[in-house]
Amino acid sequence: VHDAGQGKVVVLGAGFAGLNAVRKLGAAGVDTLWVDARNYHCFLPLLYQVATAGLEPQEIAYPARSILRRVRAVEFRLARVVSGDPAARVLRTADGDAIHYEQLIVATGGAAEDFGIPGARELTFRLYDLEDARALRNHVLRVLEHAVVATDPVERAALVTFVIVGGGATGVEMAGALAEFRNHVVPRDYRALDASAMRIVVIEAGPELLPPFPPELRARARRDLEEFGVEVRTGTRVERVTATEALLAGGARISTATIIWAAGIRASAVAANLGLPTGRSGRLLVEPTLRVPGHPHVFVAGDVALVEGSERLPQVAQVAIQQGELAADNVLRARRGTPLVPFVYRDKGSMATIGRSRAVAVIGRVKLDGVLAWWAWLVVHLVMLVGFRNRLVVLVNWAWNYLTFDRGLRAIVGAEPDRLPADAAGDVCSAAEPVSLNLGPHR
Amino acid sequence: VHDAGQGKVVVLGAGFAGLNAVRKLGAAGVDTLWVDARNYHCFLPLLYQVATAGLEPQEIAYPARSILRRVRAVEFRLARVVSGDPAARVLRTADGDAIHYEQLIVATGGAAEDFGIPGARELTFRLYDLEDARALRNHVLRVLEHAVVATDPVERAALVTFVIVGGGATGVEMAGALAEFRNHVVPRDYRALDASAMRIVVIEAGPELLPPFPPELRARARRDLEEFGVEVRTGTRVERVTATEALLAGGARISTATIIWAAGIRASAVAANLGLPTGRSGRLLVEPTLRVPGHPHVFVAGDVALVEGSERLPQVAQVAIQQGELAADNVLRARRGTPLVPFVYRDKGSMATIGRSRAVAVIGRVKLDGVLAWWAWLVVHLVMLVGFRNRLVVLVNWAWNYLTFDRGLRAIVGAEPDRLPADAAGDVCSAAEPVSLNLGPHR
Repeated sequence: VHDAGQGKVVVLGAGFAGLNAVRKLGAAGVDTLWVDARNYHCFLPLLYQVATAGLEPQEIAYPARSILRRVRAVEFRLARVVSGDPAARVLRTADGDAIHYEQLIVATGGAAEDFGIPGARELTFRLYDLEDARALRNHVLRVLEHAVVATDPVERAALVTFVIVGGGATGVEMAGALAEFRNHVVPRDYRALDASAMRIVVIEAGPELLPPFPPELRARARRDLEEFGVEVRTGTRVERVTATEALLAGGARISTATIIWAAGIRASAVAANLGLPTGRSGRLLVEPTLRVPGHPHVFVAGDVALVEGSERLPQVAQVAIQQGELAADNVLRARRGTPLVPFVYRDKGSMATIGRSRAVAVIGRVKLDGVLAWWAWLVVHLVMLVGFRNRLVVLVNWAWNYLTFDRGLRAIVGAEPDRLPADAAGDVCSAAEPVSLNLGPHR
Repeated sequence: VHDAGQGKVVVLGAGFAGLNAVRKLGAAGVDTLWVDARNYHCFLPLLYQVATAGLEPQEIAYPARSILRRVRAVEFRLARVVSGDPAARVLRTADGDAIHYEQLIVATGGAAEDFGIPGARELTFRLYDLEDARALRNHVLRVLEHAVVATDPVERAALVTFVIVGGGATGVEMAGALAEFRNHVVPRDYRALDASAMRIVVIEAGPELLPPFPPELRARARRDLEEFGVEVRTGTRVERVTATEALLAGGARISTATIIWAAGIRASAVAANLGLPTGRSGRLLVEPTLRVPGHPHVFVAGDVALVEGSERLPQVAQVAIQQGELAADNVLRARRGTPLVPFVYRDKGSMATIGRSRAVAVIGRVKLDGVLAWWAWLVVHLVMLVGFRNRLVVLVNWAWNYLTFDRGLRAIVGAEPDRLPADAAGDVCSAAEPVSLNLGPHR
């Protein structure tokens, strides 16, 4: 059992909030330990492109240690934190190690919210981390391979039906990217399949897609999606998910091998075990200064935070970035003994891309759609990507996709199991070969 | 149960031999089914770069279906063939499907040969496919993370000791790439580690590294490796591998968490189940025309072939490429009823890269070393890579690595288990979430 971080600030989580907190603390020269169960920061807004073979997983992931090269005050630690005791100022890792801190910033992010709908947690795909995106990509590619050899038309129809639950930005972008894949890649690469038989269905419980956008852009997004051949069903609830179907309110059923759950965000699971007060969707309740009431040395930022007085903040990168920065600033203020500053969200706008030359964007009072919005989306996302090489490679891939209508990156790589019945479940563990190079007496 | 490929030529395997056979058959317009358990062709000579975070897995993998876009006569089928009956002209897949053929080309490639050394099969890493390379990369990155927090100096020393068994091209290239990683990446990203304590040991049973090269180049390669800080032990046998040690003949032991097995090649496992005669290392015995004696409709090409009269062919890409082409040509000749042609290897030369500006190469009578050999190696490998985009992205990455001494792609991505004791073995299956979207009655 190792002890680390005594007297330090610990930042838990390498998402947008954690990354920006660490940068602030590092710039101030504060002794900081940055902890995450992954060794990279992932640019989550582009997960749907990884899922549809437009980008590689590593192109939107940036190693934490590289980020810290010029940030000498911050150390990184790869560890899965499983619980915490704020009174004792300690976190516990899955390995049984203790991580002590003077002050803590919790930025453990979100996870999919399934609203208790039966089957949703176990039987759907999510887009909440890089492994999700990779697993979904491999699944989509495998489903098409199975469809090629399926002889039963009912089975084949289910294999080429993709249901997306949730009409927010994630659902809309995923649907658009799948439609582009169907329209441009399937006819060339899966000649035995009838691309027009491939169904992409977006199901949204609310009355409209993209609720945070102004009405004319919502309508435009819907029209764009429908022109791309996506079925949009608003005002429709999913009541249950089975291994072969999505069951809708009113009794309708859709046979499918792929349900993508993009219906809402809750706090990541670990938040419940940190000994801190929780609120709606398992999030951690904080004062407007992002400080936890009763635990003045603990701050919370990003999707895991439920800020008193601004409970309805959108769960987007900009909020996480700004909260991460404020949490770090308030840690610095607390150390200096100066008054803390409350969180005020500066809305820089919203964007969602539907596909090739189609997007919607609100930037201040400017509303954009079509090609202009798409270019704005492209530039903003390139600028936000961490790391010059990533930007360069993403640019090469996007240019290639745009010019050729192609998605080149379709190799099924990764040891996760096929979620189709054809492959024996036993395969999962044998493929992974869990050989333990146990260091025995040394450990 | 599906039936496919009746009357067709079936090519089994998407390596160099299979790829080149398929191209020939496709160009001749012959109805062909190309079958592999992976949906891509992988450029195996660069696996060691994936394993050391110089390249992305997808940059050296090219989707089979993209390769076939302009090859209308050839269909691809993703299937794991588990057995075959050459008399009935049928292959069986893991799903229980039958694949019938008129003529068959077996090009299932090789696997690591462990010579029955205890522990080698279960406890070492290999570099024989893309999943191997990805698993090894993730392991190396995790081992370094464990070393950062290790408090026991004996444990830490084992964690930063990398043993490579085999001094052929794979072993030498892997050792060189690991040495570059240690020399240029570790000091910048793992400041808590002493890079000079990181040991890279190459163990070769024979008297010299790179046996197929001329003596002066062998000596040069050894000198280059040693200058990079690699320990080279020739004339040394590994007798046993345990979870924590490599045991050498004579009683010496090396404590290590990472043993990379690059000591030899045998036939891939499926070769034994195809009902065909086998020889040394499980390979399939063929006549000089690559035809199986007694089964005139079956041909064998690449690492899985043991050609009568040329048993000592090197197991390299060039042999596989030339045999794949000849097997296809001989299939065409057999269909036309013209005499078959025997295999004659045209040696185009050999190369091995040791690291930054260091390589050795023999091209015809020309022997190169140092910078010149390195550039030759670079150009040849870029030209051989399938797919313009892959070449472009590889070039960008290589240029970046060269100019910055960096390896940017160090995110640990993938669901395979950590092979270290710290992480619970139970994690393996939970991480993979083997959800079966069973299509029930349809299947």
